[in-house]
Amino acid sequence: MAMVDLIEYEDASPEVKAVYDDIMATRKTDWVNNFWKAIANHPPTLKRTWETIKEVMAPGALDPLTKELVYVAVSVTNNCEYCIHSHTASARKKGMTDEMFAELLAVVALANSANRLANGYEIPVDEAFRRP
Amino acid sequence: MAMVDLIEYEDASPEVKAVYDDIMATRKTDWVNNFWKAIANHPPTLKRTWETIKEVMAPGALDPLTKELVYVAVSVTNNCEYCIHSHTASARKKGMTDEMFAELLAVVALANSANRLANGYEIPVDEAFRRP
Amino acid sequence: MAMVDLIEYEDASPEVKAVYDDIMATRKTDWVNNFWKAIANHPPTLKRTWETIKEVMAPGALDPLTKELVYVAVSVTNNCEYCIHSHTASARKKGMTDEMFAELLAVVALANSANRLANGYEIPVDEAFRRP
Amino acid sequence: MAMVDLIEYEDASPEVKAVYDDIMATRKTDWVNNFWKAIANHPPTLKRTWETIKEVMAPGALDPLTKELVYVAVSVTNNCEYCIHSHTASARKKGMTDEMFAELLAVVALANSANRLANGYEIPVDEAFRRP
Amino acid sequence: MAMVDLIEYEDASPEVKAVYDDIMATRKTDWVNNFWKAIANHPPTLKRTWETIKEVMAPGALDPLTKELVYVAVSVTNNCEYCIHSHTASARKKGMTDEMFAELLAVVALANSANRLANGYEIPVDEAFRRP
Amino acid sequence: MAMVDLIEYEDASPEVKAVYDDIMATRKTDWVNNFWKAIANHPPTLKRTWETIKEVMAPGALDPLTKELVYVAVSVTNNCEYCIHSHTASARKKGMTDEMFAELLAVVALANSANRLANGYEIPVDEAFRRP
Repeated sequence: MAMVDLIEYEDASPEVKAVYDDIMATRKTDWVNNFWKAIANHPPTLKRTWETIKEVMAPGALDPLTKELVYVAVSVTNNCEYCIHSHTASARKKGMTDEMFAELLAVVALANSANRLANGYEIPVDEAFRRP
Repeated sequence: MAMVDLIEYEDASPEVKAVYDDIMATRKTDWVNNFWKAIANHPPTLKRTWETIKEVMAPGALDPLTKELVYVAVSVTNNCEYCIHSHTASARKKGMTDEMFAELLAVVALANSANRLANGYEIPVDEAFRRP
Repeated sequence: MAMVDLIEYEDASPEVKAVYDDIMATRKTDWVNNFWKAIANHPPTLKRTWETIKEVMAPGALDPLTKELVYVAVSVTNNCEYCIHSHTASARKKGMTDEMFAELLAVVALANSANRLANGYEIPVDEAFRRP
Repeated sequence: MAMVDLIEYEDASPEVKAVYDDIMATRKTDWVNNFWKAIANHPPTLKRTWETIKEVMAPGALDPLTKELVYVAVSVTNNCEYCIHSHTASARKKGMTDEMFAELLAVVALANSANRLANGYEIPVDEAFRRP
Repeated sequence: MAMVDLIEYEDASPEVKAVYDDIMATRKTDWVNNFWKAIANHPPTLKRTWETIKEVMAPGALDPLTKELVYVAVSVTNNCEYCIHSHTASARKKGMTDEMFAELLAVVALANSANRLANGYEIPVDEAFRRP
Repeated sequence: MAMVDLIEYEDASPEVKAVYDDIMATRKTDWVNNFWKAIANHPPTLKRTWETIKEVMAPGALDPLTKELVYVAVSVTNNCEYCIHSHTASARKKGMTDEMFAELLAVVALANSANRLANGYEIPVDEAFRRP
């Protein structure tokens, strides 16, 4: 159960409404998911987090789908159930197929495994991997 | 310092040499990095890990560069220095630019941050994100 | 669902009852929360954990509220739902307001984010930060 | 070894210099630590991270020292060596004594321990801890 | 709620059925738990994961019960609810008593605690612990 | 570099010396490793941690070697370099062979991997694994 009330659009202050409006306009959708309704309890966190996510997840040197895949990978590693659900949904909207999701999880599982082999054996970084 | 000796090609048993040969042939390179030389101390782990990595990181529904980016994202989240170095090097060989690396880390940082907002507020998963 | 039965006061052995009594006396309350009822299945763990928490969370160079905030920060980072709930409740009893909770989560989110930028870029520690 | 060159003030672009200037003015100091010199390789990350940290770590419902303690607690939990060093230094400047640092680590250790007892026993959250 | 449908035996393809059959034969049981029914959505992951688990968890220099205890310790540290339940059940079948489970969790809690003291104080590794 | 001075025996206060003496007597050795010399900066932490470790790691329902293996597994998962070194050394003294260490790391790697498959697919816990 949420630690705070979820703030619905009709109950929101003008500054919160302005963020909700921008979220819906940017995402071309007519609803706002619970993440925003929860952090809206602290308007500076809402505004800052939305501006960060809008900037970081925008198309750039990496395309938006790749960014969503990376986001899901981190969320699975950290076991954030909310984020796994919300960003898997975003990734699907941007083109992630069932096969891509399965391969994504296979890579995440592999990396989590090999990270521990490298750490457990305390393997020294090869000179060839270091910058000149 | 490594917990085990690194096994060089010339000191390796035939079964270890066979894996080293396959690594070099698959990667079209003439050397083997320390990760393999360390886990070669336990040949079943060497063989199994190489077969897994060869299968999982191969081109599929996700291209090899995307897989490397996901691998780096997990390694940064877990703070595996060896894996960050080795897979950043792999990703660069497959086309990752400085700009792409910077955007990758920005997404990893964002996801690690938002994961904690979602967990800290114990935000309930929206019905819309659940499968029908 | 709990992995063990929760041991209620009336069903407890004298040594478990003694710890429950001390918990209630120390906290000036008339009930014991599930954490203790679960670990009471192993009386040495119950006794040791209670003695540790009583000593570590007592007023010292840091005041009890600051200690609860730190406890919540760790629990959010590790995603321990039980601990987030129980220690947020403790922090509120010691004076944490909604605004303080929101700022706490904002710092936790920021630190989790910046930790990955520092690790991902493998940033060397400045000499100025090292002890002389 | 850093994954990128550290960008010194004299080599920085005007937009990077502007952030460095603001960091030094805000912190009333005449140098910039490596964290900023590393992320300056990606000016949008530099600017966004600095603005976030300036806003989140400013005095608010929580005082700046408490925020630094929380920041160190997260960094210790995640094992970010750079962040432990840099934010321990910041905390000391804001008044953290040796005794406070020792108590901070004792709370961090305790929380990391109790988090696993709660997760391992899968202890259900008490109704009394839930919001009405 | 699962991100994928669970694939029941009667709906499975021949290659999936072959893995299910081997799981049941190896474990001398007549059912397959949800883990396999979920990852069966990606047959290569199903096959590879089963082969790995069969090889790694088999009797070797470490006996199967010790391996299950280690598996539970990792799952508790990472807070994987599914894995805690499934591998605690496996450990019990292999002889883990309530007392052993309680001691296991006590060690896991202690290690998670001491890990943070070592990291927080940045304690240098003793020469005596390094290999000659 | 350590965040605190390491307190040598000859410079220690009587209460710290008493703990050092008990460590050496209990372990039948004539030296104290850096972990204790670092946390000795806060005598209550030194005393409490030593008493906990002496109680938890003692022979019980689990033998001391199994406890060390579990300790190493947690330390590898959390990437605590100090603890990996110190507890691998302890485990070797208690009988861990190279083969056992290799199998231990293989189980740790597997569990870290499967934890993410279970979390990523959000696999529901089977009824059969729940307590009646």
